Amino acid sequence: MGIIKKIFTKSRSPEDGIFFTQMQKILGFKPMELDHYRRAFTHRSSNKTDDKGHPVNYERLEFLGDAMLGSVIAAHLFNEVPAGDEGYLTKMRSKIVSREHLNELGRDLNLIKWVESKVSAQHFGENIHGNLFEALIGAIYLDRGFTYCEKFINKKVIIPYVDIAKLEGKVISYKSLLIEWCQKEKKPFSYEVYEDNGMEGQKYFGVRLRIDGKIVAKARATSKKKAEEKASQRAYFAFQEKINKK
Amino acid sequence: MGIIKKIFTKSRSPEDGIFFTQMQKILGFKPMELDHYRRAFTHRSSNKTDDKGHPVNYERLEFLGDAMLGSVIAAHLFNEVPAGDEGYLTKMRSKIVSREHLNELGRDLNLIKWVESKVSAQHFGENIHGNLFEALIGAIYLDRGFTYCEKFINKKVIIPYVDIAKLEGKVISYKSLLIEWCQKEKKPFSYEVYEDNGMEGQKYFGVRLRIDGKIVAKARATSKKKAEEKASQRAYFAFQEKINKK
Repeated sequence: MGIIKKIFTKSRSPEDGIFFTQMQKILGFKPMELDHYRRAFTHRSSNKTDDKGHPVNYERLEFLGDAMLGSVIAAHLFNEVPAGDEGYLTKMRSKIVSREHLNELGRDLNLIKWVESKVSAQHFGENIHGNLFEALIGAIYLDRGFTYCEKFINKKVIIPYVDIAKLEGKVISYKSLLIEWCQKEKKPFSYEVYEDNGMEGQKYFGVRLRIDGKIVAKARATSKKKAEEKASQRAYFAFQEKINKK
Repeated sequence: MGIIKKIFTKSRSPEDGIFFTQMQKILGFKPMELDHYRRAFTHRSSNKTDDKGHPVNYERLEFLGDAMLGSVIAAHLFNEVPAGDEGYLTKMRSKIVSREHLNELGRDLNLIKWVESKVSAQHFGENIHGNLFEALIGAIYLDRGFTYCEKFINKKVIIPYVDIAKLEGKVISYKSLLIEWCQKEKKPFSYEVYEDNGMEGQKYFGVRLRIDGKIVAKARATSKKKAEEKASQRAYFAFQEKINKK
């Protein structure tokens, strides 16, 4: 074991090591073939090609990732909403994989940080966030197969974001749900808002939600309201069992 | 082992036994939970519901199967067409999973034979064939997971039908390719066409393609021309190595 580990460690350059560690952090598991992930972050402006002259960038991976995301979400909705008919399931899925939502997911993971490109970040449109997110899922499929796609999507999309009540419009605001609960339980709470600008050149707001003096959730979004709602939703899910019991 | 086998055999009713055997024939593997497949063949006119009052029919399974089919075909095209960009891959996939093609796949497997319904077969539209095919894939996913979906789609869709040259319009007719080859090789050939009407009430044509006196391919379609082309394509793939070598 020791020897094998040594060989593996030796064969990775320092740059590879950093990339590996960061990918592992984003993915929640060890990547096997780093090249898939490198491609997932290679913008077409890099003009890279492989030895057969085919362009190497993340655009084809988007196609693959989009398909995997679609089927993982389909299976989730199928299982979770037994009363929903075909049309309902289709509509719910489009809400979850909407361009806007995918952009949010990619932005949250700060995927843009890893883009290899010959143009500056200001020139990317807003959709690059979602495109990178899809490409990353495509890379996961190539590297580890469908089951790992499922795990990743479950952790990054379904658990934090897919709330069927909210999608159906039954829950309007998690912030009001959470405040109501805190007041009933006589728990002090506060939303601490601060500016948190990334490298994207756009204004961002961070929020720390404290309950009983402890930070229970953090979030970041393009408006104060959105960031507060996101933090509330995260706290709500963390506390869900408690809240539903009362 | 003997005892376990006996219990399994015993616990299945005679009707279940027939259905199991037929499903195994269609699927190419042993189904585990027959209920998923039964649902895949239950038409909404049956008005079945489960113990919670949710309708039991194949419509939700279509949604699931469509998603799985989409991602299996996406992965296949991604791997097989390294030169195709995102737009190209998307276009190719829509050709493969077109309504017309899905109907053909379902018709070829004669899935309609197993439908449980309160309306007669004449009342089903043409699309029931494709819908049943999608629902069957959905049932496979629930029963055995993604890998079995891949295997089934590979066997029933990709190997017999997905020919990238043809999809790209590079090959116009397999019949002419095959005739050309037979003439060059001085092999006698014949297309034997006969009427072959199913229970659908529509006219069908069957074709037996003989080369060197032996039946090398059979096909069935709604026109003589289509049936001949289909049989030629099947023979072409069976002989492909030989043909390409010459």
